[in-house]
Amino acid sequence: MTTIKAQDPAEAAKRKAAEWAASQVEDGMAVGLGTGTTSALVIEEVGRRVASGLRITAIATSEQSHREAVSLGISMTDFAHQLHLDLTIDGADEVQEGTLHLIKGHGGALLREKIVAMASSKLLIAVDPRKLVKTLGSVFTVPVEVVPFGWETTAKRLRDHGFAPELRVNDDGKPFITDGQHYILHCDLPKSGLTAEEAAVAFKQTVGVVEHGLFLGMASRVVIGSVEGTQFLEAKR
Amino acid sequence: MTTIKAQDPAEAAKRKAAEWAASQVEDGMAVGLGTGTTSALVIEEVGRRVASGLRITAIATSEQSHREAVSLGISMTDFAHQLHLDLTIDGADEVQEGTLHLIKGHGGALLREKIVAMASSKLLIAVDPRKLVKTLGSVFTVPVEVVPFGWETTAKRLRDHGFAPELRVNDDGKPFITDGQHYILHCDLPKSGLTAEEAAVAFKQTVGVVEHGLFLGMASRVVIGSVEGTQFLEAKR
Repeated sequence: MTTIKAQDPAEAAKRKAAEWAASQVEDGMAVGLGTGTTSALVIEEVGRRVASGLRITAIATSEQSHREAVSLGISMTDFAHQLHLDLTIDGADEVQEGTLHLIKGHGGALLREKIVAMASSKLLIAVDPRKLVKTLGSVFTVPVEVVPFGWETTAKRLRDHGFAPELRVNDDGKPFITDGQHYILHCDLPKSGLTAEEAAVAFKQTVGVVEHGLFLGMASRVVIGSVEGTQFLEAKR
Repeated sequence: MTTIKAQDPAEAAKRKAAEWAASQVEDGMAVGLGTGTTSALVIEEVGRRVASGLRITAIATSEQSHREAVSLGISMTDFAHQLHLDLTIDGADEVQEGTLHLIKGHGGALLREKIVAMASSKLLIAVDPRKLVKTLGSVFTVPVEVVPFGWETTAKRLRDHGFAPELRVNDDGKPFITDGQHYILHCDLPKSGLTAEEAAVAFKQTVGVVEHGLFLGMASRVVIGSVEGTQFLEAKR
C-alpha cells in the first residue's frame, strides 16, 4: 500500500515540493504552517528536521495543522508572543502563472491562512503542477468566509455582483463551519466578469463577508514539485 | 423611583424619540429591532402596539433585543424566512449633522446592526440630542469588530493607519466577546487624520476586520427626542 502511494505522481509531486519548502526553514525562525494535503507533508518534514535538532517556533493556520505540529514536537507559539513571522509555508488551490495570484481556502482555513500570511515576511507556496492556471477561477471557485447571522442576505449581495454563491455544506447537508465559526460561500469568479483585483475589493467590502480566498500579491515564491524534481516561480517585485 | 426616572431629561428625550419611531411601524411590516438603551424603549413601545393588535414580524440585532422582543410577544423571524425588511429602527452613538453619517456599536452589536440595516428599505435612527455632532468621532471612538485569531496583528495594521486601536475588555479585564464571537477594537478616527469615508474603506479592507461601526449613507431619517417633543433630520437623496 505504501509503495503504491509513493508511486502516485500527484502525491510524489506534492512531497517533492513539501521537502524543498521545508528545507527553507532555518534555525531560530518563527514559521507559519499551512493547511491542506501539501502542508501536512511540509509539517511532517519540518517535524523530522525538528527531531534532528532544528529549533523554531511556529503558528498554524488551522486547529488540525496545530495538532499535527504539536504531535511532531514542533514548538508552537501565538500572536500574543510572536507578532511577526519570518516565513509561512502553505499550499494553494490555484496559482496563476506570472502574477503568483492564488486561490486558497478549499481546505476551509482561508481566514487564518491569510492572517498568518499577512504577518509573515515571506509566503512560500508549495504545490503540484496541477495547481497552475492561466486564469484564476478556471478550476476552482473562490471560497468566501461569511458571518452566519444573515448569511442569506450576504449571499444575495454577492449574487448581485454576479458571483453565483453557493453555501458550502457537509455530507449531512448542514453548513460547513470554519475554525472562526463562520460559513463559506463558494463564488464563481469567471461568471462575475470581474478581474481578480476587482473581485477581491468587492468581496471584502461586502457587509457580512469576513475574508475571501483570493491571495493577490502575497506569495513571494511558488515551488512546484514533480516526480522529476522542483521548479520555481518568483514574484517580480 | 419611577417618577424620578421619568423626569431625567435624557431618559425623557430617548422615550420621545422611541415613541415616535415606534409609531412608524405599520401593520404587516417586517421590522428590524436595534440594540441599546433607546432601542430597548422602541421595543417596549412596539410591544405595546403589538399587544393592542399590531401584526408584524421582526428580526433583532442582538440576542438581548431578541429576548426583550420575545418577552413582549413580538413575533420574531429570521433571514432564512424573510430576506428583506421594510424598516429598521435603531439608536446611534453619534449622528453627524447634515450627512446623517453614524457611529454605532458601543452597545457591542455593530455587525448584526449593519447586516440588519443593509437588509432594510429604511433605517430610522432614534436618538437624544446629545448624540448630534458636527464631526464624527468627536466624542466616541469607532468600534471595529475583528477576528480573535491573530487580533494582535490586526491591531498592528490598524495602528499603522493611525487609528490607535484599543481592545475592548470587560470589567474582569478579559476581551469583550460579541454575539458573533469576535473582539472589538476601539479606533480613534480624528487621530488617524482620515475622513470617515476613507476610514470606512481602510477598516473593511484590513485583513482580520469583520465590520466597523461607521454607518455612512445608510440612515434615511433621524428622529431626535427632547422633553419638548421631536425633531427630524432627513437624508438628502
